[in-house]
Amino acid sequence: MTEAAPAVIRSTDNPQFRSLRLLAQDNTAWRKQGRVWLEGDHLARAALARGVRPLLAVYAESCRERLDSPARVLVLADPLFRALSGLESPAAMAFVIPVPEPRAVDAHAPTVVLDRVQDAGNVGAILRSAAAFGFTQVVALKGSASLWSPKVVRAGMGAHFALALHDAALPEALDSLKVPLLATSSHAGDLLHRAALPWPCAWLLGHEGQGVSPDVAARAAMSVRIAQPGGEESLNVAAAAAICLHASAAARAG
Amino acid sequence: MTEAAPAVIRSTDNPQFRSLRLLAQDNTAWRKQGRVWLEGDHLARAALARGVRPLLAVYAESCRERLDSPARVLVLADPLFRALSGLESPAAMAFVIPVPEPRAVDAHAPTVVLDRVQDAGNVGAILRSAAAFGFTQVVALKGSASLWSPKVVRAGMGAHFALALHDAALPEALDSLKVPLLATSSHAGDLLHRAALPWPCAWLLGHEGQGVSPDVAARAAMSVRIAQPGGEESLNVAAAAAICLHASAAARAG
Repeated sequence: MTEAAPAVIRSTDNPQFRSLRLLAQDNTAWRKQGRVWLEGDHLARAALARGVRPLLAVYAESCRERLDSPARVLVLADPLFRALSGLESPAAMAFVIPVPEPRAVDAHAPTVVLDRVQDAGNVGAILRSAAAFGFTQVVALKGSASLWSPKVVRAGMGAHFALALHDAALPEALDSLKVPLLATSSHAGDLLHRAALPWPCAWLLGHEGQGVSPDVAARAAMSVRIAQPGGEESLNVAAAAAICLHASAAARAG
Repeated sequence: MTEAAPAVIRSTDNPQFRSLRLLAQDNTAWRKQGRVWLEGDHLARAALARGVRPLLAVYAESCRERLDSPARVLVLADPLFRALSGLESPAAMAFVIPVPEPRAVDAHAPTVVLDRVQDAGNVGAILRSAAAFGFTQVVALKGSASLWSPKVVRAGMGAHFALALHDAALPEALDSLKVPLLATSSHAGDLLHRAALPWPCAWLLGHEGQGVSPDVAARAAMSVRIAQPGGEESLNVAAAAAICLHASAAARAG
């Protein structure tokens, strides 16, 4: 037997394990602990590639491959790692990173504004689209899913590290944006695919059921409609976001 | 006390309750039972509006509003209804409908093909986009999330009833399609927003991690790329689907 054993955490009573389990599973623990759980090789590498310095690298005991990082290493017995994983097929490693320092909203950045988008999968998918289509800033208004919650981080697939993120912002934060705000509407405005879209801009995306709230919508410089020849069916908000953000990218690319 | 009591199911041992709980929570029970759980007012109304005849209308005891339908009514004590609900905020009613009879693949219909798309939320969102953008048929190849599983039905928000659905199809089923198959690629083909898209067509959408499998991709008449000026980030498959299906709709609308 090799002597890695003494360093391996084997008890679910271990305070470090308990605190990590909270971090990995509770949607609000990241805020209380000031750190974020990144499970799996893909997310960990995405963070490293963007210069993030992990606080902690956590491995399952059976995990043979270690990422090159200066982080302190913690090894958990396999059942313990599985017990804190939020994945159906648990990964064998995770990073714990500090929550990035909040910065001021960049007045001129291409921006995506989330107005109470609640589903973690939707928020994560929207972050991926934002990063893919050249948006650099996301402002999540209070009532949206927490950008650094474990489920949103997982669904973001690394997009978090390509974006400046503002969590739990107040609608007044939008006042500092100098780029025009664009809203989608089911009934008003030009058809998206015919509209002349300004760049940079900020896209407003609203609650899954209620859409953008009236006080936020009132700040929009322009409304566009997505053509839906199929009729009355409504789009998923992450689907609508993808279409709008891609339209901006396509308009720039020409 | 009013005398609705005798008709109300109050025991978790009740066989009807147990069978409904399976139907509402297990991903494969719909196939074994030949029927589908539609929870909530919105889904139930969407089904009625498309002429679906429910087998059973299930209400929580405290639910006052009954939908007008010829279905047999079953009333569950509120805790029992909550216990079988798949929702974080359980609805107070549900329909149970028969699984629609399988039909032959329509050779000429605008179609969406799912090649092992696994996440129920993604599949549901893609069905919504398909219905919104005028596609009328979805062929889910074996290995995709079951189209009639409770989570996909929930995420589809009623789109199921606007589409002809083919579940667990074999790749050979694609041979009967007479419309051109279009695939997205990260590196090959014209940029989507500049491509001349045929109509009707069939869009191929692949597995979240692996994309479209080679034997399916080989059937594609055309590949297009989605411009991603943000760089290396990958799109969520439902986001990519929304962009492609919308592009087809926009090309038709002109």
